Amino acid sequence: MNSHEVAVVVGAGPGLGNALVARFADEGMRVAAVSRSGGAAVSHRDLVRRYSCDATVAEQVKDVFARVGNELGPPSLVVFNVGIWDRGGILDISAALFEQAWRTGCFAGFLVGRVAAASMLDSGGGTIIFSGATGSIRGGGGFAAFASPKFALRALAQSMARELGPKNIHVAHVILDGMIVQEDDPAESLLQPAAIAESYYQLHRQARSAWTHELDLRPSSEKF
Amino acid sequence: MNSHEVAVVVGAGPGLGNALVARFADEGMRVAAVSRSGGAAVSHRDLVRRYSCDATVAEQVKDVFARVGNELGPPSLVVFNVGIWDRGGILDISAALFEQAWRTGCFAGFLVGRVAAASMLDSGGGTIIFSGATGSIRGGGGFAAFASPKFALRALAQSMARELGPKNIHVAHVILDGMIVQEDDPAESLLQPAAIAESYYQLHRQARSAWTHELDLRPSSEKF
Amino acid sequence: MNSHEVAVVVGAGPGLGNALVARFADEGMRVAAVSRSGGAAVSHRDLVRRYSCDATVAEQVKDVFARVGNELGPPSLVVFNVGIWDRGGILDISAALFEQAWRTGCFAGFLVGRVAAASMLDSGGGTIIFSGATGSIRGGGGFAAFASPKFALRALAQSMARELGPKNIHVAHVILDGMIVQEDDPAESLLQPAAIAESYYQLHRQARSAWTHELDLRPSSEKF
Amino acid sequence: MNSHEVAVVVGAGPGLGNALVARFADEGMRVAAVSRSGGAAVSHRDLVRRYSCDATVAEQVKDVFARVGNELGPPSLVVFNVGIWDRGGILDISAALFEQAWRTGCFAGFLVGRVAAASMLDSGGGTIIFSGATGSIRGGGGFAAFASPKFALRALAQSMARELGPKNIHVAHVILDGMIVQEDDPAESLLQPAAIAESYYQLHRQARSAWTHELDLRPSSEKF
Repeated sequence: MNSHEVAVVVGAGPGLGNALVARFADEGMRVAAVSRSGGAAVSHRDLVRRYSCDATVAEQVKDVFARVGNELGPPSLVVFNVGIWDRGGILDISAALFEQAWRTGCFAGFLVGRVAAASMLDSGGGTIIFSGATGSIRGGGGFAAFASPKFALRALAQSMARELGPKNIHVAHVILDGMIVQEDDPAESLLQPAAIAESYYQLHRQARSAWTHELDLRPSSEKF
Repeated sequence: MNSHEVAVVVGAGPGLGNALVARFADEGMRVAAVSRSGGAAVSHRDLVRRYSCDATVAEQVKDVFARVGNELGPPSLVVFNVGIWDRGGILDISAALFEQAWRTGCFAGFLVGRVAAASMLDSGGGTIIFSGATGSIRGGGGFAAFASPKFALRALAQSMARELGPKNIHVAHVILDGMIVQEDDPAESLLQPAAIAESYYQLHRQARSAWTHELDLRPSSEKF
Repeated sequence: MNSHEVAVVVGAGPGLGNALVARFADEGMRVAAVSRSGGAAVSHRDLVRRYSCDATVAEQVKDVFARVGNELGPPSLVVFNVGIWDRGGILDISAALFEQAWRTGCFAGFLVGRVAAASMLDSGGGTIIFSGATGSIRGGGGFAAFASPKFALRALAQSMARELGPKNIHVAHVILDGMIVQEDDPAESLLQPAAIAESYYQLHRQARSAWTHELDLRPSSEKF
Repeated sequence: MNSHEVAVVVGAGPGLGNALVARFADEGMRVAAVSRSGGAAVSHRDLVRRYSCDATVAEQVKDVFARVGNELGPPSLVVFNVGIWDRGGILDISAALFEQAWRTGCFAGFLVGRVAAASMLDSGGGTIIFSGATGSIRGGGGFAAFASPKFALRALAQSMARELGPKNIHVAHVILDGMIVQEDDPAESLLQPAAIAESYYQLHRQARSAWTHELDLRPSSEKF
């Protein structure tokens, strides 16, 4: 049944992004791998198409979803997985950096989320998943520019879930609590992209009568 | 590989309990269906064995796990699913009722949890899942006798997860946010037991490098 | 106006308990200093009366509030400040200890809370404050027997606040995040009892149009 | 001792802003009442000076703090009380509105917070208070453009508190859970500005050994 499904991964770079693309393609889904460069190397060449898009620009987001819709069909699964990572004391963060962190970490999520919602309202439903982090629920010292957009994105996910759930759109927020390995590193002390991707896929498979809005994922050894 | 796995469901009555038993047996697991009466009707007769136990009594909990260990083998999956449901204003709750609600909703969870943990520390690991509710994270007016044990059980689950995660025991807490249908009711406005059971099973299947400690489950139509 | 007010401090021992008694008496309130032994040394001899009570026993709690009502008048401020402190791995905690921790840390709070509520519903209103801790919102590894009753007490406080707020009873929960000095130690790395007591008193003074249900208190140097 | 203290209220308009200005001046503090127009009518003419500033513009924020420092002296208390209020379904919010809501509700708080922090690090300490709302901890349906900046501001407050607490700067976040009356309305079902202002002032008065980072304020009748 997945053979007619379309997934969009925004933030399809090395690490989790590519693992999501691969996991969805494993199920026979056609996958739009969206990244700034559009050039991430991925497997499943027949099922995966790469798109380049700056997700912080409203027009580009709109355009890329229009292209995906035309070329692959309307998506039933959209993942917003754009990473940010900034650290610095409150006096060390420039206004420009603070704004850019929000633009990348939250505003892009808003742009992607509402285009995805509009498409799914038309097509009858779907799943939208936002990648969160420890910083989504805790503002640590030195992490203002990281946590602030992550909190903001979580609020967006909650608002969308409450508005769109009754309209058959499943909005979920995943708290990734730990560092993700970037290469195929067997260290069990880090989050493995393929293991994370499995849980994203299971979220999409949940029956409408028992949807998860939020879950955390961490390595067994992670302090929390 | 599941053919050698053993699951224990404490609180194996109509609704979620039986659905969990059935879901685990579907995977070929041998399942101990533990309830006060021991008499719940279940399918999968070859894989499921019923046990009677008052989970609020330390000796009985110890005994039933010893019997399960001898008869089925050491469990790799234990679910604590004992339900409580009490409602009343603060002046209407008797001390006896408040105590009994804790004894059933939290103390039994402690007794089951530590016996399960002891067994899994011996056998090398496993999964322990506690069933929570909306009342696990919100003390509503008129719900003191419900929320207080549910909060208490959640604290237990958190403490156990942090202590036992590095020892290869995955402790999870599921917030069931909504009413569960008790019969095979197709109403999508209620949580379906089989759909919940699927998520419990997926928790057990998570790779050690990306474990979930807490997730919520609710029907798409549920306000939250 | 405070000269006609009566306060009850349950858990009036060295440290915070005595500081609360002193702070309320400073305002001219008549204070019932309730402890298991009844023998805590306090200042303000003319305003403070000592009572002995095992707060885990329903009859004793009922009796001591009846005596306070007769001897000092109906209380407009009741603080539940009974401390518990237990630490141990999940396999090291006996069932008896786990139960005792709940009995002291939560059940006693229920017994005190409902008697206080009944009295205040009669007299037209008042303030009930529960002392929480870091363990009220986080179940750390090795802290199951501490956090579980503290979570349970917090749920009770929430339920009572939501039920009783519209009836003019202000129920608050204070999260004491850090160690409290027991003697008159000037170390700023610890919570000072007199400083905590000030915030408890200010909670009682809040106007009905802007009540706080929960606040945290910690030394400026505390990590959180 | 307050006679030498300086307070800055950013967002000094009708309602809470003016009440804060009045409350601080009541204590003899010199108060900078900062608003976009600079024209809010206030009492205490000898102690209060009005400043106009668009708090979303970094240069203006920097300038106004420089002027306050020169004219009144270095502030020991700064309140960020800039209100936002937007409501709309996820498809009804324009990208421009979503950005403006963040710019007003969070970015301005960052600009004010870091200038205040820099000044207080120089002068030896102080208090910074951010006004939050129900939307700071809950993203309701139809409230994405309101909750997202409010979550983001809360993260900022947490990060600053953790970084700056040990440096003698008390950063607090107040969750205003309910509607605030704008005129002198005696309705007890609404938050009264003067009552809120009292709690802000008490936060500033807290001893360093027992600081509150977060508290909620709501009318006794408010559902929560």
